[in-house]
Amino acid sequence: MIREEEVNGRVLYENGTHSFIWLGTEGKYRKGVIQTMQYLIIDNGRGILLDPGGVHLFSRVVASVSRYISIDKIDAIFFSHQDPDVSSGIALWLGITQAKVYISELWLRFLPHFGIVDSTRVLPIPDRGSKLKVGPSLELTCVPAHFMHSPGQFSLYDPVSRILFSGDIGAAVFEEGEETVFVEDFARHKASISGFHERYMASNAVTRRWCDAVRRLKPDMIAPQHGAVYRGQALADFLDWLSALRCGVDLADQYF
Amino acid sequence: MIREEEVNGRVLYENGTHSFIWLGTEGKYRKGVIQTMQYLIIDNGRGILLDPGGVHLFSRVVASVSRYISIDKIDAIFFSHQDPDVSSGIALWLGITQAKVYISELWLRFLPHFGIVDSTRVLPIPDRGSKLKVGPSLELTCVPAHFMHSPGQFSLYDPVSRILFSGDIGAAVFEEGEETVFVEDFARHKASISGFHERYMASNAVTRRWCDAVRRLKPDMIAPQHGAVYRGQALADFLDWLSALRCGVDLADQYF
Repeated sequence: MIREEEVNGRVLYENGTHSFIWLGTEGKYRKGVIQTMQYLIIDNGRGILLDPGGVHLFSRVVASVSRYISIDKIDAIFFSHQDPDVSSGIALWLGITQAKVYISELWLRFLPHFGIVDSTRVLPIPDRGSKLKVGPSLELTCVPAHFMHSPGQFSLYDPVSRILFSGDIGAAVFEEGEETVFVEDFARHKASISGFHERYMASNAVTRRWCDAVRRLKPDMIAPQHGAVYRGQALADFLDWLSALRCGVDLADQYF
Repeated sequence: MIREEEVNGRVLYENGTHSFIWLGTEGKYRKGVIQTMQYLIIDNGRGILLDPGGVHLFSRVVASVSRYISIDKIDAIFFSHQDPDVSSGIALWLGITQAKVYISELWLRFLPHFGIVDSTRVLPIPDRGSKLKVGPSLELTCVPAHFMHSPGQFSLYDPVSRILFSGDIGAAVFEEGEETVFVEDFARHKASISGFHERYMASNAVTRRWCDAVRRLKPDMIAPQHGAVYRGQALADFLDWLSALRCGVDLADQYF
């Protein structure tokens, strides 16, 4: 259960000039709608938003962000991929910020279908990944996560907080009232993530590669867009599980 | 080049009570925005719309549809998958029609992120596919097309016109002025489809299965959401090419 005072968010890392913030949750479940988690990184007074979400969340996320930083100090918005729950609010965000948007080059020509979008402010991340600069000194790493599930997808690693934002990877679907901020016990958590990962992730050929790349970064936390944050033993257990998972086209006989 | 009189659409099949209509194209390319093709099936005076598209196309597609059928006779809307260029107009379409929306069960909980959506009107297509009934007698077949590219995706076969709507499969990206309604020469067309299929389709394990299923249906045409319509020798050549294609995770070393 997420405590009342955490509904409005929680600072996952803070060192005086740099913070990594989970922006909280909806107070009540909206039945039949997947819950999402948004994050904000602030570095020396400038902000970057991670997967700020769809149209229907816009007003709540704006309110959450404004508790930590003025909206006009958001310099960048990172979209892990093109799904409606991730990026359908793009036209609204471009309207109230001066931020640049970063997304896989595969989706550049698709985003304008969400509405009026100034394409000069949407910048492509190349397939092999790149560094994403925010403010005077912060350099984030875009980690390839293609086909997990989107063909063009990135995770984002913050080397200061040592937190990896993983988008849909590691996502859990909880029963109402069962939500926690951190994964407490991976063996138990597995039941909330198995079905999703087996069906949406495209193949062990990519989950294995992603886990190898993530282990090399030695993150302290993995923060997904749905569910709960991994750290400590749960993080190691999660990577071991995912790198051995058979999923997607490995199981194609089940879906065709 | 698409002739001036075809910008407003073209009837691909018509037998007096049943028609399969391509709804035309945008008069001018919008730079940096992927072009899309919408289709309308009319059976005994009732309609079904296929991938009617995103917010920015809404007014043009409504106008195109209204040339052939009254909007209030649209009973169903089929979404091949969850991408913005396919389905981000859902809230607008639900607003002006009484139609039910059909999409893979994998995306049911994601669509509300496009805006205000009445979830009771959005119906799931199970993984193995199903029949989709329109009007008194028409039965369309949902053909599994998972991971091509979306993890939950369907093509739609109309047994009366013998046309298969294939969504992103077979999609071409043309240079301005190079558009044609039908693929004239597959050997030449290949250059417009190779890059997209190699990078977005998840694996030969699924393209092969889809091609086998499509061959069993013996369609006269394959109509994609972008590009040009396949028929005759070009259709056979396309299936042969796609069923042998190495793509997506088969080439993961190129992207990770």
